[in-house]
Formats: sequence, structure tokens, C-alpha cells
Amino acid sequence: MITRMTELFVRTLREDPADAEVPSHRWLVRAGYIRRTAPGVYSWLPLGYKVLRNVERIVREEMDPISQEILLPALLPREPYEATGRWDEYGPNIFRIKDRRGSDYLLGPTHEEIFTLLVKEMCSSYKDLPLALYQIQTKYRDEARPRAGLLRGREFVMKDSYTFDIDDEGLEKQYQAHRDAYIRIFDRLGFEYAIVRAMSGAMGGSASEEFLAIGDSGEDTFVRSPGGYAANVEAVSTAIPEPLPYDDAPAAHVEDTPNTPTIETLVAVANEKHPRADRPWQASDTLKNVLLMVVHPDGTKEPLAIGLPGDREVDMKRLGAQLDPAEAEPFGEDDFKDHPGLVKGYIGPQALGLESSTKIRYLVDPRVVTGTRWVTGANEPGRHVFDLVAGRDFTPDGTIEAAEVKEGDPAPDGSGPLHLARGMEMGHIFQLGRKYADALGLKVLDQNGKLVTVTMGSYGIGVSRAVAAVAENTSDDKGLAWPRELAPYDVQLVVAGKGDEAITAANDLASRLHEMGVSVLLDDRKATPGVKFADAELIGMPTIVVVGRGLADGVIEVRDRRSGERQDVPVAEVTDRILAAVRG
Amino acid sequence: MITRMTELFVRTLREDPADAEVPSHRWLVRAGYIRRTAPGVYSWLPLGYKVLRNVERIVREEMDPISQEILLPALLPREPYEATGRWDEYGPNIFRIKDRRGSDYLLGPTHEEIFTLLVKEMCSSYKDLPLALYQIQTKYRDEARPRAGLLRGREFVMKDSYTFDIDDEGLEKQYQAHRDAYIRIFDRLGFEYAIVRAMSGAMGGSASEEFLAIGDSGEDTFVRSPGGYAANVEAVSTAIPEPLPYDDAPAAHVEDTPNTPTIETLVAVANEKHPRADRPWQASDTLKNVLLMVVHPDGTKEPLAIGLPGDREVDMKRLGAQLDPAEAEPFGEDDFKDHPGLVKGYIGPQALGLESSTKIRYLVDPRVVTGTRWVTGANEPGRHVFDLVAGRDFTPDGTIEAAEVKEGDPAPDGSGPLHLARGMEMGHIFQLGRKYADALGLKVLDQNGKLVTVTMGSYGIGVSRAVAAVAENTSDDKGLAWPRELAPYDVQLVVAGKGDEAITAANDLASRLHEMGVSVLLDDRKATPGVKFADAELIGMPTIVVVGRGLADGVIEVRDRRSGERQDVPVAEVTDRILAAVRG
Repeated sequence: MITRMTELFVRTLREDPADAEVPSHRWLVRAGYIRRTAPGVYSWLPLGYKVLRNVERIVREEMDPISQEILLPALLPREPYEATGRWDEYGPNIFRIKDRRGSDYLLGPTHEEIFTLLVKEMCSSYKDLPLALYQIQTKYRDEARPRAGLLRGREFVMKDSYTFDIDDEGLEKQYQAHRDAYIRIFDRLGFEYAIVRAMSGAMGGSASEEFLAIGDSGEDTFVRSPGGYAANVEAVSTAIPEPLPYDDAPAAHVEDTPNTPTIETLVAVANEKHPRADRPWQASDTLKNVLLMVVHPDGTKEPLAIGLPGDREVDMKRLGAQLDPAEAEPFGEDDFKDHPGLVKGYIGPQALGLESSTKIRYLVDPRVVTGTRWVTGANEPGRHVFDLVAGRDFTPDGTIEAAEVKEGDPAPDGSGPLHLARGMEMGHIFQLGRKYADALGLKVLDQNGKLVTVTMGSYGIGVSRAVAAVAENTSDDKGLAWPRELAPYDVQLVVAGKGDEAITAANDLASRLHEMGVSVLLDDRKATPGVKFADAELIGMPTIVVVGRGLADGVIEVRDRRSGERQDVPVAEVTDRILAAVRG
Repeated sequence: MITRMTELFVRTLREDPADAEVPSHRWLVRAGYIRRTAPGVYSWLPLGYKVLRNVERIVREEMDPISQEILLPALLPREPYEATGRWDEYGPNIFRIKDRRGSDYLLGPTHEEIFTLLVKEMCSSYKDLPLALYQIQTKYRDEARPRAGLLRGREFVMKDSYTFDIDDEGLEKQYQAHRDAYIRIFDRLGFEYAIVRAMSGAMGGSASEEFLAIGDSGEDTFVRSPGGYAANVEAVSTAIPEPLPYDDAPAAHVEDTPNTPTIETLVAVANEKHPRADRPWQASDTLKNVLLMVVHPDGTKEPLAIGLPGDREVDMKRLGAQLDPAEAEPFGEDDFKDHPGLVKGYIGPQALGLESSTKIRYLVDPRVVTGTRWVTGANEPGRHVFDLVAGRDFTPDGTIEAAEVKEGDPAPDGSGPLHLARGMEMGHIFQLGRKYADALGLKVLDQNGKLVTVTMGSYGIGVSRAVAAVAENTSDDKGLAWPRELAPYDVQLVVAGKGDEAITAANDLASRLHEMGVSVLLDDRKATPGVKFADAELIGMPTIVVVGRGLADGVIEVRDRRSGERQDVPVAEVTDRILAAVRG
């Protein structure tokens, strides 16, 4: 294929788009790969669409050996989502439609329900299983904050797969096959990624891992330990300390701590007025109690108190994953009025818990084990209680994984200190189990003629997001720099010389490359070499070939976009050299 | 590729689905190609999706030489459609969505506005033109009556193209290039089609042709003449007779015609009581005046009277095309009360027209030319007027093409009598002109540095509909029978013999075919040969190979699905024979 820049539907931009927050967004727009049509909704221009199709091709090549491709609609009826509870759980995050008869529809954000029902219609026996199905399809989510171009859009392309098995062993096997295929896909896509444990969130189910593209533009924080532990921050479980003996602990005693509504002021006053014998008080000696309102999908609210060491904040993402599908709201002034027993800034565990006078559910960080001793609110203005012992002086209603994870925290499996990094979710594999099959009645006859519920897996890849992730991972300060498998063209051929000779030589070279199966973007514009070089680097084909001044000396320049390496190659050798570069 | 029936996600049905009205729908569901997910919304199973992808491939191969592929979103903002008036014009025919911020969106039924705006952002000079862009994309229409499976769905796949030119000559050239590409595409798809003149409808613009798949399941009626005239019935223009001299015509005279509210009773009574000298009165001598209410997109209504020869009915589709985007409603009892000057059943032209007392717009069939003499209502109960001469005794406000077209009517270009047939719209090509560019301000600088409005073309192909059209055209009483280019597999290989020998021979043959690039659907099920043969004919691969009883005699049966021809081929020759069939 030969495409001429004078004919290509492209316009490169010298300026960053105003809303570009991340490199992939900036470069994909500036190089003419995508354009914004509405917030979180993008159009794919010819160059961008070629990259998208290349990603789809790679996904298909790796999925076809283990799964069958089908295509479901995006416009979906309400009823199946009602049956599983997700119609309500999704809240404002899905697009809802009423048709001309007043029936409710949604634009599918993910298709568990529809696949489950389809398999229910088509399969009746264990002989129909194991089954694996996938689709590459346009999905919709009404994101509260669409951002970062293709990285978080409201209309996007996903590959979603679903597996169906008669037993857990079969599910485990298919899960592993999908995990292996994902590794092959992400290896071919050519960006750095990590596989981490994940929460299953609104999807239900048990085992679940995410494939994260590592990079600062990522919205997700994950942790890794030297010993190989890796988890999305939402899924990190705290390394729980052993219970401490507390027989020798002094009785709890309330002290005056005037004007100490914050941990910082409390530690200062405690050290000044009630110094500790062995060492100064630290934030981690205090127990902070955070009040929240939990909002359920049906709109009902209930208060929740979370107790955690004073040196940690509540991580709203971790909390959100625990509460999902409910959400957390701040505890407002009106809520305090409804609970007159709470003294703002001085709330202590004695006033919390379902068995206390406030009847507020009280969950603590897993580090608050029996025997730990705390400085915490005394439920009186300007006063705190010291030596309050967990399990002796208060008993919470349970624990919750809601405290922030810190660099250096121990991995829960003892594999060393955790290192924090950022990433973007590119793939997610779940063992859903029987949640959807139960809700929608997907059963088959087993070998003994008994009806059994099918167990399912669900596996997604962000296909359009992958285009951005690769751009994010491979671009530099000059623009895009595609890996071979994704590049829209193998070669950008720049006519940099004046006169007919250069044009003839370039056309001739393009034709020869075309015959050898090398695709060429031929920059035949009437522009200065400087403009053309800048555009070639911006657009990012892996090999840039310059037919210019060297032609008089019988040479053509071959540049590698990623390394920047340049070589003058004798005209007679240039096709071989390019072919070698293209074929790697 | 080798796929085993025991692993394929398919379930053939012995019974027709309850809602199947047409053969394509019946067979595609029964053979396990598609399943209904909601009214007018279908899921594509593995076999069906392969056919869909084959259609897409053919479309791409023919479009790529003349156009650049891009991909626009389906979720579109309201504003551009507001600017062109289509947000209102579409009425209940589009799906409308409010996002979480309350902004209005639609699911795109067609993308003229978005392409126009995209080109406006990207192009500024005549040097950027001519330009041709296309996409293969999922479209949405909230059809009042989704029907016939894929033939009229609410979610469907279309190829839509748009061209952009500086002048009409350029548009004409691109229109022709698209017309030629469409001919190549429809030839390859392998169904019978006709190219007919069409109305441009809500799309605006001038020249327009449709590609219709010929078949009784089609919703559209079209006409053809022996001399080559062809038009969609909505676009047929009436052959207009010459005006007649009327100097010798007697004066109009009102006669008693009791109880003649219909044309039939009128003709009978006229022949009995007021016989004509030369021949009996016929329905075509009478002028029927039909009253309607025209409803505009903004909801306002106005009455309309249509005068046409009594032997013709108003064709609601032709009328609809003339009124579009307005619609026609019956003239009800309340409307008669609002117009006391009208005598139901005896309405005559003297009471109609904007200059008459009723002020009702009066349009007549083009056959009602000056000098024609009519028997028509006298605006009195039980009385008609005879020898009422058009142009002497009444003058309508204009003409309208709303009368039904009849078999044998003369073609407007004199090319002979029209023959009526039915078809389904598969493609539509339009010269849009400057309607959208004007509404959205798409201008570029011409060679003289002057801003000029771009002229556009719009070209669509129903991609998912084509799957059904081919099925419609090629299926028989046993099931589907795909043309080679569309078939999901080249060969269905049926293991019909018992014992290991047949299975081994079939596996061996499948492997050899696979190595030669022939794709095989291998029916390895434990079912009777009868069930397998029936399924093979239902599923419709072009070549059916049976490894069965003949194996003992060293032969394998090769069947052609379409012709039904069967041959026993010696085992040693069977791959060559199959290869010859596959390669045509």
C-alpha cells in the first residue's frame, strides 16, 4: 500500500489541544489520529483507525485458538440487568434509553447478562461445555469525569470474553488459558505491564487479576514486592500483626487535650502535656475515627465509622471497592445534628459500634488488633483517652480494608516491602463463578442427568484504550513512535530534495517497497524538509526514509524512529536495508 | 481452519421461530447464525458473524481504492443535528439519550452532520479536496415496526461514505466512482439487484439512486420499463399527457346522483341515469378528491386535498416521500366539523384551493391537465357535476405525485410500459449538494482565494442487511446456500459412516484440506446421517462432503449445495475435486 500525504485525510497540529492532560492524548490528536466529537467520545481518523484495527487483529489472532467470536448488540433490554441487580447498581454510570414504546434499554457497559442468557438458550448439557465466547464491540459508560482522551472515554472498544464450565476445575483451566492469551497479546502490543490481583467490584465473583499498563498517566495505583506479590491498591490486604498481650497495660485514662481536633495537634499536645516514657508520641499511636454516610443503590443511607491509625488516611478508592455497589458520602453537619452523641473532632470508639448508644456501625483497620493501645477521642470536647486497649476497652463491629497503602508497607504474604506504582487497567480477568448463572437460571444437565448451575469467567481488554496505552508507553518528546505490529505504515518516505529527480526516485522506491509488501506513507507535499521531518517524527512510523540531498551522492537516508539512528544507504541497497528493518 | 460441530457454538432448530415472516429470518435463526436479543436487535453467533465479516471484507476491498476508512462514534451530540433540523425531523425514529449532566445525545442513524463538521475542522483549501471518507459502523433507528429479522432492525451495521468536492463536476465524478464500486460490491455479494432512481427523502439533495435486492420479501416497490427506465415507486414521475383543447366542451352541469359516495356507485349511477354518448362512464372519468391532514415536524397541522382520477388510490408511501419530513394523517370527523363547507363523499374542486372559500390547499395528480373533463362532486349531498373542465372550471394550487403507480403505466421517458416488482433497499447513493455544508458552514478557499461552500455526496450500504438479502436470494426449501465469497466455511465435512475408519478418514481429509487453505466445518457429532445431512443443507456451506458407506468402495461423496449435484469421488482424487469446487 502506498498513501500520499497530499491525499491522506490528516492535519498535524503544532499546538497541544487545550484539554490534553496526558502524552497519548496530546500526540494522537496532534498527529491526526483521533478527534474529539463530544466529551469522552472520539472519532478515529485514517491513521488512528489503522492502529485500532491492528490491535483488533492481534487480539483476534490470540483469542481465536481458545474462543469463538460472536457479536452482541450494544442496545440492550433492561430486564436481564434488572434480574442481576445491575440496572440499579450502575446508577448514573450507564446510558439509559426509552424507546418509542416506553420500554427501557441501556447501552451495554459489559455483557455478562446477555452472554449468560444466550448460552442458556443454546446449551442444555455438560456436552455443550466447556465453552468460550468473545466479541470485539463498542461499549458505553457515562463516566462522571471522562478524561485523558482514549484512556477514559464514554464510548470505547472492548474485547470481552466469557467462559462457561460445569465445574470449578474447568473454570480454573479456562481462566489460565485466557491469562496466557492475555500475556501473549500484551507482549505483542509492546507496552510495559504488570499483572496484579484485583477486586472484582460490581462484577461479582472471586479470583480476579488486572493487566495494568505501567505509566504515570495511569489512574490506578498498584503495589509490588521484591518477592513477587502484586496487587491493585484496592485489592491489597493488610499484613495483620499478631494480637498483643495487654495484661500489663494500664487502665484507660482520659486527659485534657485542649484544641486538638487534628492528629497533628493531638500529637503535639500529648507530647507536651502527657509525655510517653520510652519515646515521643507519634501519629501511629493515635486512633482516628472517620465518619461517613454510606449510600446504597436504592438511595437509602446509613452512617459508618472507620477507625484507623492516625498516620493513615482513608483511601477513597479502597473504601469504594469495599462498599461497592454502595458509595460513600461525607458525614455532614446535618448528620452530626442527627447524632447528638458525637463530638466532632473528639470521637472515640466507646461511642461507636452497633451495640453502643449511637448504633453506628464501626469497622476498624486490620492493624487495630486485640491488645493494641491507642490515644483516641474521649467523646468530650478537648479531651482524649490514653491507653485505650482494643479488645479490652472497645470491640469494633469488624474490620475494613480502607486505609491508604504506603510505600514500604509489608506485603501480606511476607514477600517484602511494597513498592507503589501507577498504571492503567488494560485487561481484567475474573472468575465470576455462579453469580450470573444463578441470577438468570443458567443450568445444564450433568453426566448424571442432574441440573447444575454453570460457572462462569469474564475477561476484558480495552482495545481502544490499548492504542492510547501504547502511545503513552512509546511516544517521546517529538511525537508518536509505534512498534512495528501497530504502525499504520511500515515506512514514512519523505521527499526532501527539490526537483523531479527526488520525486521520481521516491516514487520508484515506494513502488518497489509496495511490491515487496512494505506499506509506505509518502510525504509528497510541497513543504520544507524541516516541516516534513517534524511531521514524520510526530506521526511516528517505525522507519523514516529520506530521499533528499544525498541522492546526488547515490545515497538515501534511513532513520529508525525510536532510536533516532540514521544511516546513509547506497541506493542499490536501500530496499534490502528497509526490508531488514521492517521484518525485524 | 477446521472447526468441529461438537465444539461450535451452534444449535440448529427444527421449527421456525414464531416471529419469522421471511425466509432469510427463518433460516438464519434455524441454522444458528443469529438470535434475537430484543425487538429489532440481534446477536450474531459464530457462523453468522463470519458471514458478516465476509461482507465487510468485500465492502472494504472495493471501497479502499476510492475512499479512506475512518470510524465515528455512534453516540452523538444533539447540536449538529439541531443545526440541520434533523433533531426534530427524525421525530420518534431516533433513540435519544440524556447523559448524567442532562445533555442531549442521539444514537446516530446516519452521520452527515458529523462528517461535515469533521471535514470542516480538518480542511481549509481546495487542495484538500476531492475527499472521500467511509466507515463501517453500527447504526440505530427506533423503527415503528422492526420486522423480518435483519432486514429491518433497530441496531444494524452500515457502510456509510461521504464525498466532499469544490464543484458539481467533482461531485458527479465521485458519485459515479461510488456507483461503480457499488456495482462491484453487489455483483460480488451475489444477489439479484436493480439500480433505480430514488427520492432523497430526509437526506436532502438532488440526484439519488437506490440499489434494491429484488425479492418478494422486499418492502419497496419499484418499476422498470423495457427501455431501461427504473425507479423506486416513490420516485416515479407520471408521464404527463398533453393539454386538451376544450373549446367544444359543453358547460359544466350538475346532476342528481343519489347515494353515490364511492367511485363505484357513482360510475353505476352515471351510466344508468346520465349515460355518455360514445361509451360507458369509467372510474377514470371521475375526479376523486381525498382530504388529509398534514402534520409538520413541529406538530402544526394543515389540511390538504388531493385530486386524482377515480381509478387510482393515493399511495401513502409516494405521498409520504412528497411530504417528508411532514407526515399525513386521515381527515377525521372533527376536521370535517372545522370545515362546514365540505360535503363528505361529494367534495368537488370548486370548493377547494387556497382561493376558494375553504382555503384548503388543493393539489392534483399530474394527469389532471388543462382541458381534461371530469365527473366529480358538486359539493352537495347526492349530486355530482359533469363536464367539469380543468383549467376552465377549476384551477388547482399545483400538482403532486401521490397516486399509485399501476402495472402497465407508461414510463415518463417514453421507454414503454412499467412493470412493478418488489425489492429491499441495500444501497443508496445521493448527491447531497450543499445542504449540510450550508447548514454547518463547511467552506474552503478556492483557487482564487475565495471562500466557497463544499458540495457533498452520501453513499450507504446495509452491511448486516446484505447478509439477510443474500440468504433471502439464495436459500431454498432446505435452508441456506451461501455463495462462495460469503460462506463461513468452504466445506461441510460430514462423518456419516460408523466406526473409527470413517472418523480417521474424515480427520485426515480435513487436515489435508486445511493445509491447502480450505476451511472445513467437520460434523463429528454422534447423530444419525439423516440428521447430519439435514443440518448440512440447513447450514448451507457451498460444498458438502460425506465420508460414509462409500469409503468401503474407496469413494467419498462430494455434493454441491446449490445444485444438489452429487458425485462419488475416488479417495485419491477427492482433495483435487474439492479444491476445484472451492476455487470455482
